[in-house]
Amino acid sequence: MTDRHTEVPLLDLDIYRAHVEARIDQFLDGKARAVGTPRLPLPAVESLRGFFRAGGKRLRPLLCACGWLAARGGRETAGLIRVGAALEMFHAFALIHDDVMDRSDLRRGQPTVHRLLETDFSRSHPAGGSARLGESAAILVGDLSLVWSDELVHTAGLEPAVFMRVLELIDRMRSELMFGQYLDLTADARSGTAPELPLTVIRYKTAKYTVERPLQIGAVIAGSGESLLADLSAIALPLGEAFQLRDDLLGSFGDPEVTGKSQLDDLRAGKYTVLIALALGEADPGQIAVLHGVLGNEAIGEADADRARQVLIETGAAARVEQMIADRYRRTLAALDRAALPADADHALRSLAHDAVWRHS
Amino acid sequence: MTDRHTEVPLLDLDIYRAHVEARIDQFLDGKARAVGTPRLPLPAVESLRGFFRAGGKRLRPLLCACGWLAARGGRETAGLIRVGAALEMFHAFALIHDDVMDRSDLRRGQPTVHRLLETDFSRSHPAGGSARLGESAAILVGDLSLVWSDELVHTAGLEPAVFMRVLELIDRMRSELMFGQYLDLTADARSGTAPELPLTVIRYKTAKYTVERPLQIGAVIAGSGESLLADLSAIALPLGEAFQLRDDLLGSFGDPEVTGKSQLDDLRAGKYTVLIALALGEADPGQIAVLHGVLGNEAIGEADADRARQVLIETGAAARVEQMIADRYRRTLAALDRAALPADADHALRSLAHDAVWRHS
Repeated sequence: MTDRHTEVPLLDLDIYRAHVEARIDQFLDGKARAVGTPRLPLPAVESLRGFFRAGGKRLRPLLCACGWLAARGGRETAGLIRVGAALEMFHAFALIHDDVMDRSDLRRGQPTVHRLLETDFSRSHPAGGSARLGESAAILVGDLSLVWSDELVHTAGLEPAVFMRVLELIDRMRSELMFGQYLDLTADARSGTAPELPLTVIRYKTAKYTVERPLQIGAVIAGSGESLLADLSAIALPLGEAFQLRDDLLGSFGDPEVTGKSQLDDLRAGKYTVLIALALGEADPGQIAVLHGVLGNEAIGEADADRARQVLIETGAAARVEQMIADRYRRTLAALDRAALPADADHALRSLAHDAVWRHS
Repeated sequence: MTDRHTEVPLLDLDIYRAHVEARIDQFLDGKARAVGTPRLPLPAVESLRGFFRAGGKRLRPLLCACGWLAARGGRETAGLIRVGAALEMFHAFALIHDDVMDRSDLRRGQPTVHRLLETDFSRSHPAGGSARLGESAAILVGDLSLVWSDELVHTAGLEPAVFMRVLELIDRMRSELMFGQYLDLTADARSGTAPELPLTVIRYKTAKYTVERPLQIGAVIAGSGESLLADLSAIALPLGEAFQLRDDLLGSFGDPEVTGKSQLDDLRAGKYTVLIALALGEADPGQIAVLHGVLGNEAIGEADADRARQVLIETGAAARVEQMIADRYRRTLAALDRAALPADADHALRSLAHDAVWRHS
């Protein structure tokens, strides 16, 4: 499948999504061939390919397309597809490093990249140390994914003025994500109960990174002015917060068969979510002891998680998070009303927002 | 110090170097201020600032300036300074991740970023896990350094055509480094003795990344044609190999007071260098046992390192590496003769090559 001069009627986001995936595949094919010539390590590229094949919502490329529709993008979509592929490639970087830092075993129902590479190394390096090697190699595969996401943007064929504006938004987006990640990493669930900190993390890691910037980048590719970018922010920020609050609920209450992630990961990693902050704020001493016993404890099992879930419900924290999601969803719809976007963009965003907020995986 | 419209007589590489360092400082000041407003973690920026303040040869910016001189760069050097700062910022990313992967304690005579952050976390997170937190935070600081190096290139004010050529070279440089790093990581010193693998690692990690690409990038900023880029390759590749072979010798034989690195790091990490490959190829069973006992063994001390050094000398490996360095240095000088670069570029490159190859730190 070629993406040159592709003229997709962009109302069909499924077709766009298929083009983005084809672009990633084609790019990695090129890298795999280049890698093959001088004895370079194919597993580095292959683990990344496996990561994309395992699925994913492609939310950032889809939001990029929505921003493009919002700015009345024309029929020439090659640049949009390439930048969409770049956003997904960048996201792979973020998830691969995140999984190393959280020591997660599963992602999208498959072994995480560091676990996959660990298995590979346990065969080639019988002398041991394969867990550590797997983590180091995954750091490098993540780094590759980051620089390749740049290469996809650089080769997207954008007009110089548009290209510079896209790069500026991407620079902001990346710093914002990393600040959010850093805050998330260093927040200690056991040392405080104020939900402001996890809300700041959500704003940087999800609202801005996942929703606001991809929407704006798509709009800029279509030549958008500044006023539309502000409208898109107003739509994006509450939506992104709602999306992440849902993610946190699914992390503890979602069906692992559907989410592809263990219900134990967030608790084991001691992730300081709004859900946990609210529960700690309302918990009695016995309930606090239950939460402190599981948070950041790598040895917990399903029974411990059950008890923690009980506390999240009994303190009313789970219900309050549901309420926060509903409030934010309403604010997104109100911002959409005010923005009065073109019908196709409006429809696509309402549908994406609905699915992102009221989902099971 | 402002770098706008700076007109440095570029024969003075010390002044250029000071401008590059000022640009990094100024950029990080801006980031630190932006970070201060919403409770974002200052240590992330400050650890990076400390990293630059601890020193470093600034070899890549200096080579970038040499390439610029080779292409008869004019008086407008702001773009060159910014790209030089970007190359140094990118290098910080590579070293920070490298130190995490190698679990190194010291870099440039100071605690590595992950150790510095670990100390910080041991105060704020008394419940433990600070070593792991330090490593994760250092991965993020490295990621920040990588995306900020991009931001420095994006804001360098280069002409569109030059900008695109620079981005293409940077994309190549980054993939090359990461392939080299990956090969380096997965090479197992105990499983083979052929020096081809460590030579391939050297070619990607050092010859292309450290020397060839910075030279070419500088030349492209000055508007160089393709033929000069090929001449610069011929100069760069043997020089880069000689530089890394020297580094490997210094890793085991250098004075820690001068190099700022422990003599044990390379051995503990089981680094599969040309030096080690040659020694294993010539060693008798007793000598092989000595090397296998120290390589990748985190528990070794000075006495073990002494015995390993003895083997590196007795097998003739150290002398052969010295010979390889001298051969490559000669090839660099011959390539410089053939290229007949402008006098200032020629002189600067000969002086840099001499210092890089015949150094003690």
